[in-house]
This record gives sequence, structure tokens and C-alpha cells, in this order.
Amino acid sequence: MTKTAAILGGGVIGGGWAARFLLNGWDVRVFDPDPEAERKIGEVLANARRSLPGLGNVALPPEGQISFHSTVEQTIAGVEWVQESVPERLEIKHKVFRQIEATGYKGVVGSSTSGFKPSELNAGAASPGQFLVCHPFNPVYLLPVVEVVAVPEGAASVVRAKAVLEGLGMYPLHLKKEIDAHVADRFLEAVWREALWLVKDGIATTEEIDNAIRYGFGLRWAQMGLFETYRVAGGEAGMKHFMAQFGPCLTWPWTKLMDVPEFTDELVDLIAGQSDAQSGHLSIRELERIRDSNLVGFIRLLAQNQWGAGALQNAHDIAREPEVGLVRSVDDLADVAGPVLTLKRTVPLDWIDYNGHMTEARYLDALAAATDRLMLMVGCTPEYIAQGGSFFTAETHIRHLDEAKAGDGIAVHTRVVAAEGKKMHLWHEMRRGETLLATGEHMLIHVSLTTRAAAPPSPEISAQLQRLAQAHAKLDAPEGKGRAVGAPR
Amino acid sequence: MTKTAAILGGGVIGGGWAARFLLNGWDVRVFDPDPEAERKIGEVLANARRSLPGLGNVALPPEGQISFHSTVEQTIAGVEWVQESVPERLEIKHKVFRQIEATGYKGVVGSSTSGFKPSELNAGAASPGQFLVCHPFNPVYLLPVVEVVAVPEGAASVVRAKAVLEGLGMYPLHLKKEIDAHVADRFLEAVWREALWLVKDGIATTEEIDNAIRYGFGLRWAQMGLFETYRVAGGEAGMKHFMAQFGPCLTWPWTKLMDVPEFTDELVDLIAGQSDAQSGHLSIRELERIRDSNLVGFIRLLAQNQWGAGALQNAHDIAREPEVGLVRSVDDLADVAGPVLTLKRTVPLDWIDYNGHMTEARYLDALAAATDRLMLMVGCTPEYIAQGGSFFTAETHIRHLDEAKAGDGIAVHTRVVAAEGKKMHLWHEMRRGETLLATGEHMLIHVSLTTRAAAPPSPEISAQLQRLAQAHAKLDAPEGKGRAVGAPR
Repeated sequence: MTKTAAILGGGVIGGGWAARFLLNGWDVRVFDPDPEAERKIGEVLANARRSLPGLGNVALPPEGQISFHSTVEQTIAGVEWVQESVPERLEIKHKVFRQIEATGYKGVVGSSTSGFKPSELNAGAASPGQFLVCHPFNPVYLLPVVEVVAVPEGAASVVRAKAVLEGLGMYPLHLKKEIDAHVADRFLEAVWREALWLVKDGIATTEEIDNAIRYGFGLRWAQMGLFETYRVAGGEAGMKHFMAQFGPCLTWPWTKLMDVPEFTDELVDLIAGQSDAQSGHLSIRELERIRDSNLVGFIRLLAQNQWGAGALQNAHDIAREPEVGLVRSVDDLADVAGPVLTLKRTVPLDWIDYNGHMTEARYLDALAAATDRLMLMVGCTPEYIAQGGSFFTAETHIRHLDEAKAGDGIAVHTRVVAAEGKKMHLWHEMRRGETLLATGEHMLIHVSLTTRAAAPPSPEISAQLQRLAQAHAKLDAPEGKGRAVGAPR
Repeated sequence: MTKTAAILGGGVIGGGWAARFLLNGWDVRVFDPDPEAERKIGEVLANARRSLPGLGNVALPPEGQISFHSTVEQTIAGVEWVQESVPERLEIKHKVFRQIEATGYKGVVGSSTSGFKPSELNAGAASPGQFLVCHPFNPVYLLPVVEVVAVPEGAASVVRAKAVLEGLGMYPLHLKKEIDAHVADRFLEAVWREALWLVKDGIATTEEIDNAIRYGFGLRWAQMGLFETYRVAGGEAGMKHFMAQFGPCLTWPWTKLMDVPEFTDELVDLIAGQSDAQSGHLSIRELERIRDSNLVGFIRLLAQNQWGAGALQNAHDIAREPEVGLVRSVDDLADVAGPVLTLKRTVPLDWIDYNGHMTEARYLDALAAATDRLMLMVGCTPEYIAQGGSFFTAETHIRHLDEAKAGDGIAVHTRVVAAEGKKMHLWHEMRRGETLLATGEHMLIHVSLTTRAAAPPSPEISAQLQRLAQAHAKLDAPEGKGRAVGAPR
């Protein structure tokens, strides 16, 4: 059954939440008195549709329905989650919370607050613990972390929040104690304050400061954060050694510490002017698309390396496989008579080239993923490979029959043309809906990873391959099999 | 002529400098009294050899020679650059600087100091301005940023430093005024201090703090830094709007401000223990390799998107093309009789799969890059493509004849088999040295990017293709051309 979320407040953050829920198959009901709310959320949603569906290697569920409502009461009728992202003023939040209570809604209300503590949110609550901090980061539809903070009475709300957020492919970071601004924004504030001083004092421009970050420690923090980065810097001598070296520096008079530069018009103009010089040739929408393309690429690279935010994404993908019909063993197939579903995903942003379509090498990326899935299904599992057996591709023939764009849903079905001894001859067909996009014909050889030479597969793998090969031999031969490049049709 | 650098101090930073110079073709002379220096630098160098050569899309020059010397005087004999990375104590640095002056060396001395100002470095200097801050970030062989800070007399040293650093593929960030700790380390200190408080007060563990960063704003900072990220967050209303919203928060009592937690044994044990629980299952060497694999992937993804550190890398690649024999036009070929060099690069870390070798899709990635180079050479330039003409690949046949590993140098040579009307039939051969790794046979069709249908190329492109096709028709036909998958040899 479709789940439904209420989104109270439809700005950048609320719109990001709406997109995250919708693209993960939830229906979304929005309340925002701003007459521009529908347009604004539409723009966030357009960005999310462009970037999120291809992030993982498994297709997302069909998008949910979005609707807009004129009162809090109407909005939260029948929902299973309420996410509050109204302006960051406690009296506004309390007013909305009282409206929620008045409807009789007993579920959890997550607040996107970046600064308020859960004890402040729950002040005056009929059921303390119903309101908890669920603080996400922009863009909400791509960044996985959500800071979750509750009052002591909110333990059940935390359990529920974790389940909902994990279902959205997010990472609930449950903080043990409440503190102003939670964790991440305290860091951001410390850096922001220091950066204002550096600009004001003429040490560096906004662009130079950004470059100091993104050409340096920003690339480290995207994967390891602070402590693990320093653990590496400490080397074999370890974390204690690093702290002995770096700890004393903290008493040096480096940063501006608690001084806050006065927010004069001059300072605002200085920073806004430098920012225009740095990025003014790109609109905010263009910058957002660039940012999202980079984020998708980073997270997908980390997924390839099974690390950080990419490892989170992989776990989410695996959880989604059954919903799209992907199985991990031939034994789990309902039916072996037809071609086997070996891939069902969305074309991601990093697969697009200068011609504006999926680039040729990524066709093979998708076909290779389909081959990997078939290998897994016949028993060539990570454990089997760790013991020294695998398949190497010897030869590949691809026909590019139609274009695919970023965001297209694609599926690959695979036949075992032949499986004799060490050879595995596969035929892949890649489609978008009914449209045949490409065929791939592949000859693989089973090898020993020790000798790197051809060697027979295990009897179990041979048996499963034979099972598929015999079933698929009964199908009509696919058009294009055995074709050479440039041969007449 | 080979250039030579002196590396004074061979720790993590000095070793990183040694690797960066060596892998960019410089000879390197090292001074470090530590009897373990050669082993330690060897370990850094092994990591650098694994990751740096494949970072760009153009092969690096042959590696330089490294030698170890027992005095400063011997080390800097005949060098064109001195990089000082001795311990972070001013009296040690001054002692080394006086030894350098005593040899009569008049070139620039870059100091890796993270904290000292150039006025402090040049105190007592015979020639003020000879010593300047060149502060890199770990790992020096991968992260491009170097903070360059000079005293007013050091203007010529800055010019020289920029030329040397850019030649190493680095980004010299020249700060206009000196300040303790330059720019980036001021941010790192602010965050470090705040993080220590959060751990000490039991708000979050080291792992939770790292996750708050790497699943969130770390992914933003790796590409846009601080101000551009906030520019985007401010939306169409602009940077001033963002500052009006966020500026006032700075007076809230969020961060611990100037309080520094006392560095007790308990705090050190708490943090070291949490760090062990988080990352202790991986050795520092393993963590370094993971970090470097991720960094290579990030920078290469950014290069694909022509953004941030990747745009820097692309500029460095283009500058290197002539040195490896790559040209941008058929007219620049010394000779059109033989197959054309269309790729010369090193296999990067992100091209390796679970079988420990270059994965099949990346063979096509390399072959597609070779096709792109041939297109460029015949006149299908970015400007031509922007006007609406391009080639689409219709069909591909790849034979995987041998494995390639990360770090292998590979080259592709290309023949034009036929070029008739809208068709371009190519034959690529990929080699590591003399070893044939793969062949690629490709049929491409010239299209209109407006109609997405076949259309004739410009007369200039047809003429250049014909020129190559006629020359290559005189060569013996390549073995394997016209082959279908699974056909007998």
C-alpha cells in the first residue's frame, strides 16, 4: 500500500523532502501558505527527478502523487509521517505543532530545525516525544545524513524515524544528547565565522577560500570526515600520536575565536560582490545542476569502492532488488523459460556524454552489470570469486540501436546462448519500455584467478548454466546474433 | 633537460613532495637525518605510483631518479627548487635556511610550514624573499592546492613558485597578506576544536562526527567549497539574501568558541578508543589506499564534469599532450602512413574491478576516448559539435586479448578502415608496450544533433577522413577485422 507523508513548509528544505518521499514511492501532501510554493517545489522536484533515480543501481518505485492543501488539518489527514520545515522561529513551529495536535494525529512529527533542541520543540506538547529533530542537509534528495535528536520520552519516535528515513535511502544520525545546532551546523558556523573574518581582513576572496577547501581538505572530508582523515595523517603511530602533535596548536592564536565580524553593509557588499565575480556567470539553477551531477558522481564512485555514502547506497540498492524483480539465484526465478531479468535501473547523470545521451562505454557498463548479475545467479558469487574462480570476457559485440537519456528507465534481459566447458556465451537485450536500445553478445571464459588461465567452472555453476542454456535454446534465435561490424543487415 | 628538486625533510609531507616531483619527471634529492627516511619515503612513493599516474587522461613523463644525501649542502647541489618540510619549529627551519645560504644557492626555497608566516621564515635572511610559504595538503601527490605566501620582497619567488607548482599539476593559491596558519588550517583548527568538545561532552562519537561530515556537507565542500555552496542555498534571491538569513545566527551561542578542552589523558584515550572502534579493522596503509582510490575517483569525476579540481586536471592534461605525441589535428601529424596515436595514458584506479584488472567497460571507455581523439583530429571539434554535427557509434566489436592492471601504461593506435558518406569505420589497437591488449572495431554514423538522424559530415571532415582512409588502405589488413563473437579463429 502506498504510504503518505505530510510536508509542512515547502521551501528548499521542504521541497527537498517532498522530492525524496515522492521519488521513493510515497504520496506527498504539502502545506505552505506561500502562493509560489507549488512552483518552487516543482523546481526542486525537477532537479531531484534529474539526479536521484539514477543514483543507485536499482530502479526506484513508481513516483508517488503530490497534492497541495490549504490547512494543516487537511494536509495531515491519513498520513504516516509529518515533516515540518516551516521558518526557523520557535513560535511558528509551536503554532504548527498545536494545529497538528488539534487534529488528533498521533504519529511522529519530524522537524527540519537546524538550531532548536528537541526539549524546545516539545515544550507545551500534549505528548512529549511526538516532536523530534530530523535535520537534513541540502539537497535533501541526494545527501543521506539526517540528524535525529529526541527528548527522553521520544524513544519510540526515534525507532519510527529510523525506519522511515532508512526506507528513503537516508542515514539517520541519532545524537545521544541534545545541543544547540546539533553537530554539523556547529562546524559550519565555526568555518563560516572564520571565513567572514578572512574576507573582511582582505586575506582571501570568497573564490580563494572556496578553492582552499575544494582543492584540498574538502576532497578528504567527502569520504572520511575529520577524525578518520587525521587517523591516516597520524600514520602507523596512531591517533594518540596525531593528537600529541596537533593538540597543542589549539592554544595558538590562529582563529578569530569568539569575535564575530559586525554585519555591516560594507561586509555584505564585499562578500556578495566577490561571489558574483566567482560564480555570477552561472544561474542558481545551473549551479544546482552542476552540484547535483557532481554529488551523483561522488556517491556512485564511493559505491563502486563500497565506502562512505556509497556503501549506504549499495545497502539501499540491495534492499530494493526484490521490488523490481531482480533475484540472486536461478533457483529464485519463477520461470526459467524466457530471458532472465539481469538489470533494472535508471540511466544516471554520469553516464551522459557531449552528445547528450548515454555514452557508448556505459552501454557496456550496463551490459557488464547484467553479466555480473547472471554470474551471481548461477553461483559465481563474491565468495566463489574469493576462492579463485571467475569469468573473464573475451569478446563483445554491441549494437547501439537507439539513444538513452539521463533518467530513462532501462532493463536488460539475458539469454545463455551456449555454456560448454569453460565457455559462457551470452546474449543481452537492453530496453526502455518496449524500445530495444542495444544488444550485447558476449563470450566469457571461466578462469582461475591464480593462474589467470582458462579453467572449468564448478559443477554447480555448470549445471545452472546448462539449465538456462537448455531452456533458452527453445526460444527463437535473436536477430543480430553472430553479426560482425559492418556486415549487411 | 631533467629538472632537479631538493626535498629537505622526508616525512609524510616531504615524501609526498618527493613523489609529486618524481612522477612528474623531476629528479629528486632527499635530505633527512632519520635512518628510516628512505623506507618511509618508499612507502609514500608506492602509494603515489599506485594513484597519481592514472589520475589524468594523458601519460606522465618517465619517472625521475631519487637519491638520498647526508648533508643539506650535498642535497641542494645543482637543484632548481628546494622544498623544506622539516619539523614545525621555527629554530629548526632557520637553522636549515642558514645552511642553505651558506652553500650559495640563490633559488627559491618553498616551506611546507602550516603555521609560520613568511615574515617569520625570512627573519635573518640574507636575501629576504628567498624563503616563502608553499603549504601543501596531505596527500601531496594527489591534492592540488598549495598555499603560497611571500613577504613583499618575494614577488619574483612567487612567480617562480607558480610556474613550478603548475608544472606539477598543482594549484598555487597566492594569499595577498600573511596570517598565522594561512587559510585552510584556520578552518581545520576551528572544526577540530569544536569536534573535541562534542566528543568530550558525549554529544557524538568520532565515527558519528565523521558521518555527519562525509554523508553531508563534506560532499558539498569537495566540489564548491563554502561560499559557492551558500550561494546555491540562497537560491535566486542571491548571496545577500543568504547572508541576511544566516548571518544573525553567528551571534547565537552555538559553538564552544574560544574555550579549548584541556588535553587530558582521559580525552586522548576517549578519542583514540573511539577511533579504534571506528577504523581499527583497517591498517593505516589500507586506509591510505582507500582514501587515494576515492580521491582519484572524485577528481576524475570532476574532470568529466569540467569542474573544480577536475578542471585543473584537464588543463594539466592538455598541456601534457604534445609531450606524449598526441596531436589535435591530422595536419599536425608528422606522417599519415601508419595508424594514428589516439590515446596514451595510464590505467587509473577507478577502472579496476573485482577480478583485479581493467574492467571490460573501461576498455570501451579507452577506445571511445581514442575515437573522440580521432574525431577531434579530423575536425569534429567541440565547436563543430556545438553547431549540431557529431558521430554516433552504431556498432562495436571488442576482443579482450590480455589483462591490464592499474598503473599500466596503455596506448591506442587507430586506422580508418573506411569513410564513405555518413559512415566512419574504425579499427583501434590497444597495447601495453608491445603487448596487444585489445582490438576495437567500430562503425560510426555522422548525425545531425537536431534531428538525431544520419546526415553527411562537413566536406572538411570528409576530406580528412578520406586522407587517412587512403593511407591506411595500403597497410596489411589487421587480424580479427570483420570477426563475429564466437567465430572460429
